[in-house]
This record gives sequence, structure tokens and C-alpha cells, in this order.
Amino acid sequence: MSTRDMTQWETAICKVVSRDGEEEIVVRGHRLSELIGRCSFAETMFLMLQGRLPTPGQARVLDALLVASIEHGIAPPSMISRCFASYGTSIQAAVGSGIAAFGDRMGGLGEQLARLMAGHLVPLGDPATIGEEQLHAVAGAIVDGARREGSRVPGYGIPLHGADPRAPRLLAVAREHGIHGAYCRLAELIEAELAAARGGRAVPMNLDGVGAAIALDLGFDWRATRLFLLTARSVSMGAHFLEEQAQDTTWRHLRADQITYVGAEPDQK
Amino acid sequence: MSTRDMTQWETAICKVVSRDGEEEIVVRGHRLSELIGRCSFAETMFLMLQGRLPTPGQARVLDALLVASIEHGIAPPSMISRCFASYGTSIQAAVGSGIAAFGDRMGGLGEQLARLMAGHLVPLGDPATIGEEQLHAVAGAIVDGARREGSRVPGYGIPLHGADPRAPRLLAVAREHGIHGAYCRLAELIEAELAAARGGRAVPMNLDGVGAAIALDLGFDWRATRLFLLTARSVSMGAHFLEEQAQDTTWRHLRADQITYVGAEPDQK
Amino acid sequence: MSTRDMTQWETAICKVVSRDGEEEIVVRGHRLSELIGRCSFAETMFLMLQGRLPTPGQARVLDALLVASIEHGIAPPSMISRCFASYGTSIQAAVGSGIAAFGDRMGGLGEQLARLMAGHLVPLGDPATIGEEQLHAVAGAIVDGARREGSRVPGYGIPLHGADPRAPRLLAVAREHGIHGAYCRLAELIEAELAAARGGRAVPMNLDGVGAAIALDLGFDWRATRLFLLTARSVSMGAHFLEEQAQDTTWRHLRADQITYVGAEPDQK
Amino acid sequence: MSTRDMTQWETAICKVVSRDGEEEIVVRGHRLSELIGRCSFAETMFLMLQGRLPTPGQARVLDALLVASIEHGIAPPSMISRCFASYGTSIQAAVGSGIAAFGDRMGGLGEQLARLMAGHLVPLGDPATIGEEQLHAVAGAIVDGARREGSRVPGYGIPLHGADPRAPRLLAVAREHGIHGAYCRLAELIEAELAAARGGRAVPMNLDGVGAAIALDLGFDWRATRLFLLTARSVSMGAHFLEEQAQDTTWRHLRADQITYVGAEPDQK
Repeated sequence: MSTRDMTQWETAICKVVSRDGEEEIVVRGHRLSELIGRCSFAETMFLMLQGRLPTPGQARVLDALLVASIEHGIAPPSMISRCFASYGTSIQAAVGSGIAAFGDRMGGLGEQLARLMAGHLVPLGDPATIGEEQLHAVAGAIVDGARREGSRVPGYGIPLHGADPRAPRLLAVAREHGIHGAYCRLAELIEAELAAARGGRAVPMNLDGVGAAIALDLGFDWRATRLFLLTARSVSMGAHFLEEQAQDTTWRHLRADQITYVGAEPDQK
Repeated sequence: MSTRDMTQWETAICKVVSRDGEEEIVVRGHRLSELIGRCSFAETMFLMLQGRLPTPGQARVLDALLVASIEHGIAPPSMISRCFASYGTSIQAAVGSGIAAFGDRMGGLGEQLARLMAGHLVPLGDPATIGEEQLHAVAGAIVDGARREGSRVPGYGIPLHGADPRAPRLLAVAREHGIHGAYCRLAELIEAELAAARGGRAVPMNLDGVGAAIALDLGFDWRATRLFLLTARSVSMGAHFLEEQAQDTTWRHLRADQITYVGAEPDQK
Repeated sequence: MSTRDMTQWETAICKVVSRDGEEEIVVRGHRLSELIGRCSFAETMFLMLQGRLPTPGQARVLDALLVASIEHGIAPPSMISRCFASYGTSIQAAVGSGIAAFGDRMGGLGEQLARLMAGHLVPLGDPATIGEEQLHAVAGAIVDGARREGSRVPGYGIPLHGADPRAPRLLAVAREHGIHGAYCRLAELIEAELAAARGGRAVPMNLDGVGAAIALDLGFDWRATRLFLLTARSVSMGAHFLEEQAQDTTWRHLRADQITYVGAEPDQK
Repeated sequence: MSTRDMTQWETAICKVVSRDGEEEIVVRGHRLSELIGRCSFAETMFLMLQGRLPTPGQARVLDALLVASIEHGIAPPSMISRCFASYGTSIQAAVGSGIAAFGDRMGGLGEQLARLMAGHLVPLGDPATIGEEQLHAVAGAIVDGARREGSRVPGYGIPLHGADPRAPRLLAVAREHGIHGAYCRLAELIEAELAAARGGRAVPMNLDGVGAAIALDLGFDWRATRLFLLTARSVSMGAHFLEEQAQDTTWRHLRADQITYVGAEPDQK
């Protein structure tokens, strides 16, 4: 841990320099002006985080993950954003706070699963060499570990409205493009273990879970998992902000009849 | 303006319903599971905001705008994000605050120009029918208006390091895909007017300026302009957060010798 | 407007220096170690913002304003904070976003009224010399101006539950301590004008309105008005966060039956 | 853990009801209108969090803690706030983000120490009954535990500029008002143990450390520790925002010469 002031920074992500009277922006070794119009947003996001452009299959799968994460109705982050619109804030205050709303209980479960899976598989070396039996063993260990702690395995759950169709769809896309690897397989084995542990009742993988598996099979560090959700969902937060703003609502609030006061009464002190 | 509580919401963006024991997510009339793996992030962002899928040309140009906006070195929003990493916050706190940092003087000038240009052109009807002469007149009015107010035209400036190459590159991509319309033309005419008003000295269009023109020629409302910058730049904020975190820095701070105290001294009171 | 980097800062608020191997913190000419235990929080807040300690009367009135602003049930900022607790965020993410929720339509009306009143009275010189007739004229101008614009005078309104008792109570405290000056008087005259304009129906001053008047009569710049609300209400946001966290709730969300989807349906495209 | 929608809330903090056509705000059993002008901000903050008014000694000590926490020069949260001012954001965006900047490495160490100390002492029952020997043993356990983990004890450190005078000053105020109890004693014993472990070299208690001890001896839950810092420091963030805004600076940024690019170069790919 080294304490730093504001005068010395080191980065391998980007440099901005003057060249021939023009500003040149180099992103991980690529001139940004050459990426514009030639590479997609997903390809450039991959480059930004991993330092190299993705293969066509990797680009398609990351794009699919971003699309899967882009919208989920007026879910909590977009509910927050719509409230901010009704309070008359700027769009950036609303989107910024919608993003800040992600925590351990909402939008963080993908990161938790990714950390858990990576913790087990990284020590086993190249994921391509990990066999089915080893993955079965890890799946078992993860499910048993959760049971002993009395906690849930993050990334699997009983959604409010039914099984989450984004998970099987994303796994299919990953398989189609050759990205379905050790982590996607592990995620599926965990799902099977959870069902077995519940007498066959499904505990389906949700977006958090499949997002973790795909991010890791795409080669990202587990610490990047949440960023795909944040970047994609910012579109929802912004779209919902603009719609609520156009509806000219104000002061989204709780009604008195929705709040039960269980505190002390005056004159009893 | 209508005051609302938290129990009644109306949206045309997305619905999430149960269907055959499975959750179905419908985004602007499209099943999300059908968009995943078939539509790109940019196409889906366009759909989210405008309610219809873009033409191929529109998709390419929006993608290009997002790529152009994705990174600019350790610019203010990513500087803030890196500082947060050194303070030991979560990635969502850092990205959320980097987004909240956008204001009137940083990252807001695109929205200001878009509002200005839309204010002049929207009353003139279908942008495709606005002639060159009318655009010249509007450009002149905008430049004159700024001069009278003693203010700058937002979206044009003298960058720290030289002319901004993202602007001409984006305009070329827009032209290539048939998106270069009334707003892009107006933005170019404003640039010419500004140079003329300064005896030929260029006042080049920057990313804010070209972003505004392209967003409007893509058919977006001016109020959406800033969202393209926020969503794209969230990738930079996240990447820089992860890099600073990996560098294990702490407590990015100002040194005492960088601060001049000009207040009262003790014992003088 | 001058562009700055991160190496040169100038402040009259505080300096932190080494002295005899010990750190000395000087706040507006006062050693912080001498303020601790001798001056109240309100007195020190006054010193921080105005550069001098308040008179006893000013200290009491500022303290009263902070207390009046400290809590208002699960009002929007604390509703946001409680939601964040249910999402499993940190207390600082919740309080920070509750503060960011203040906008033009919620929690900003005090600042708007302060700016309006200061805009009229500052050009008239020393507020102590402004006569009753002049104040009447200004009150009339403000009410007429709002009527012509078709807008409301900020700081006055029909609260959801009845007249706001914080306003008359604060005005009484201000009067008791000799702080009730030109701005408090102007605020009262505006209230009278509004009632007259509505055939006698009261449009009572609310916390925003009286907060603006008191902040200005305490000698603060109108731009500081919102800070008293933010600082005081942060206590509510924090207390509500801790209570919701202790209740171990999760995922505060909207139910599907509370959302009406008015967008396109699939298969109609 | 119970999943909740937005329609049912329970709180013992405050109720807002209509009574005789007037709004009545009851805070923990006290009418807010009766607190205004009679109770200080610190007293009301104590009431909000603990549900009862403090003794005079407790009120003085909490006030002292808030004053001690109110300002520390252009420290990170106020540096962030000043940057936001230069970007042209609102004061609430700046203060909200300054608050969100608190993390594990900055401004969070008080909470960590409070949790650590409470973890050891709460099981021992009424703090007033814990003897000096037990406290010695706990201090030793805490220091040994940190050494084994290879980590630092939070709340003690070598400040940049010398020993922190706020700690001894606050401990003196606590002693003066009869608040110096088991936690303050424990914090002092930890300081002694740390010095002994370093051959006599002092590792002085800082504001984080003494704030934790005082908060706990005042009877607060360790989870509330950070709130005293956030609320108090919001004043600094606001004051610094207003000063930077008045200085009309723009775009606080890093210079190119302060950034070393260590990434790939173009044309090497």
C-alpha cells in the first residue's frame, strides 16, 4: 500500500499527447481515431479492460452480455433514477446514484459468485485443462460451503416472476461462439448440485450468475464483473430518467398510510 | 407537474411478466431474449431511447459515437474514479461519483449545444428540408448570440493538446453512413463562423460539439445527449478504478505545499 | 473563469501545519483544538462559512434552523437512504445519494427563494436600513413576477398534511434572539401577498421558505442556503439507514402490479 | 432477510401527522417544534440515533466530537468537493460525492476500530463493570491480532504532519464531562501497547481512533461511528465548494507531464 499525492500517476490504458498540432489518443496501443467506426463498443470495452482486442467470438459474447444486462423494467436502480427525475435533478446525478445503489444485496451477487468461482479455479491453472470431474468437485464444494454457512450461493435464486430466460440464452450464445468454458460449465454444475440438494427443485441461474461465468470465460478478472452490469444498466437508468422527466412528475414519495410509527409518543416522557 | 407517490408508474420502455413459468422481458416491443446475441449494444441502446431499432447506418454511427467517448486518459471523471479506488471504495461508488462529476463546465457542453441547435432547428420542421442558407443564418445567429452574451459557443474550444481528432473522424463516419444531416452541417457552419469571427483562427469542434450534432441527426432528443458520454465513459472510470486498485495506492491527496492559506492567523483575534 | 490543475489551491478556510512535532489545524484563524469543547457545532459551522464566530443570538438561531431541518419522517432523501440499506450498500453511499437527490423540485426551493430575495434586497444596501414600504413593494414584485410567469413562489406551498409548524416556530426563535430582520420580514410579507392574491386563502411559508429568510438574516450568502438542509438532514438519512439495516430488509422494489406498461407488444413489429 | 416492496415501512424515528389542520412532526416521542430553539443540533442528533435526549455531559462531548471532525483542510473529501465546483456541478452533487468517497482506506478506520473494540467488550457486559486488567488483556489481544495478520490497528497512525492534537483534546473533554469510560480507556491502552511493541516509538491515536472510542462510550452502536464524521465533514465539503465556486476555477485536471503511460505503443501490433 503506497500513499500517493496527485502528481504522479501511471497507466497502461491511455495516453493523450500532442502530435503535429493535433491531439492523439492512444488506447492500449491503438489510436482511438482508428477504432472509431471500425470497432464496436463491446470490442473497445474488451480492449480497455484486457489490453487486447477480442476475437470475433469474444466480441459477440460480450455484446450479448451487455444487451442482456441493459434493462429489467423499473428495477431498483431505474426506480432510483426515476425518483431523482421527479426531484428535478440532472440526468448525471440520477444515473450516478442509480449506479451507487448497487450493493451486497442488489446487483452484487455476480461479483460474489465470480470471486468464489475464480478462487477455486485459478489455482488449478489454465481453465481449458480443467476436467469435468474437477469441476464437479468444485461445484460440490461451493454448494456444501454455502449450506454450512447457512447462506445462498450467489447468482442462483427464485426470481419474483419465474425462471430467468437471460441465463440459458446467454449460455447458448456463449456455446455458439466457442466461449462456453470451464466457468460456464462450473456454473451449470452448481445449478445441478443446488437442484439435487433440494430434491430436484430447480434453483435457476440468474443474470448475476451467468454474467459471472461469462465474464470469467471471456478472460476478465473477477473484479471487473460488476462493471458490465453498471455500464449496460446506465442506459436503462438514463432512459427511465428521461421518460419520468417527460411525464413531469414531482416528488415521488411515501404516503403516510404506508408508514407505521412504532416509536414513542409525546407526553409519555 | 403532478405529485406522485410510489405506487403508480407508467412506462413504454419495458415490461417484465410471468409467462409459462418463465419471466419474459419485453423492451419496446421486443423480447430481450431475442435481442441477446442478435442485436449489438448500440442497437439496443438506440431501441431503448427511441422505441425502434436503428437502421444499419444509424447503428454504426451510434456505435462510433460511443467508442469515441469511451476514453480520454485520466480526465476528470476517471481521475475522480482513481481517487476513490485509493480511498478503498467499491467500484460502483467510484463510477457513480465519476458520473456525478459532470457539470456545466465539464462534460455538459454537448448537451448545451444540442439544446441550442435544437432550439433553432426544431421550429423549422423536418431537418431534411432545411436548406443551406437557413443553416448559415442559424449558425450566424448562434455565434452572434454568444458574442453578445460574452460567452463561448459550447462544443468548440481550444483543447489543451491540439485539435480534437475525434470530431472530423466522427463526421466522416456519419457521412459514410448517410447520417450527416442538418445538425452536422450546422455544427460545421458554426465552426466556420467562429473561425471567420477570429480572423481565420480555427476554433475546432470538439467531442462535445460533434456528439451533440450526431445525437440530433440520429433522431435523439437533445436531453439524451449527455447519456452517450456517461454510458461510454463509465468504461473508462471502471478500467481506471481497477488499475489504480491493482496498484494498491492509498489516500490520493494534496500536499501541504500545494495549498496556500490566505485566511486569518491565530492570536490576531 | 480560470482553468486549473491539481497543484495550486488557495483557501481562507483552514490550514494544517506541523508545529513542534504536532499537527496544528487552524480554522478561519482559530485553533481547532481550542474550539473543541468550547464552541458548539452550529457556532463552528457559522465560523467555517462566514469567517467569524457568531454572536450568541446568531448561534442560537442557526442551531434552531439545523434542528428544524434534521428530520421529516421517511421523506424522499431518507426513503432513498433506506432503499440503499436494503440493497446492502455502505452508510456513506446511502447518505451521499440521499444528498444528491436534492434537486429543483425537492429541497431546492429554499435556495431559489434566497436567490430571489437577495436579488431584490442586496442592491438596496444594508438590510437594516430597508424600510417597511420598500419591503412591501419587493414582496408585491415577487408575487406578481411569479404570477406573470405562471410559476409558484418557492418556499410557500400547501403541504401534504397541513400548515408547516416549523416556520412560525423558527420565526419566533429568530425574533427572540434579534435575528428577525429584513429577509424574515420580506418572507412574511410575501406570505401575506400570496394570501391576498388568493382571496384570503393561506399559502403558508414552509421550511424551505423560512430557512432561506433566516439564512440571509444570519448574513449568509444565498448560495449557502441548501447546505444547512443537507448537513442537518444527513442525520436523518443516517438514522433511517441504520434502522432499515437493523430490520434486515432487502431489495426495496416496485411490484409488477404497480407498473403499467404502455409500450409496444411483441409480434406487432 | 425479508424482501420488501415500497408500501410497508416501519420506523421508531419520526412520524408526521395532521393535527388540527397543522402538521405535527414527532421525533422519538418529542414534538420537533418543541425541540427547535431549546435543544442543540448535537442533542437532537443524539436523540435521533439513541431514542432519548442525552445528559448534559453527553451532549457536550458529542458536540465536541462533531467540532473536531468538521474540518481538516483540503483533505480528500473536500478536495473532491472543490473539483466538483470547478466542473460546475450543484453543491449537493459535490457534497454527496465527497461523502461517497469515504472507504476502507480513508475515513473508515474509525468504524473498523469501533467494530473491533465493541466485538471484544460487548460480550463482557456493562462497560462500567469492566476492570483495568480485562481492558489490558483486550488491548494486548487487539495489538497481537493485528501483528499476526500483518495489518495495522485502525485508528492509530503516523499522520503526515505530526501527532494529531484532536485526540488528546477530545479525551480531555470526555474526561471533563464524565464520558471517559471503558472504550476511551481501551483506546489509550491500545496506544500504549502499540508503542511498547515498537520499542517506545509512539503510534498516536488519531481522529478516527478517538472518534470510535467516544462514540462507543456515548452509548452508540459501532455502526453509527462513521455518521458523525460524514455529518460534520459535510460542512467542510460545502464551505470548500462555495469558496472554489467563488474563485471561478474550472476543470481541475491532471497535467500530461504528471501521467506516465506504460502501455503499448501503436504500430507495435
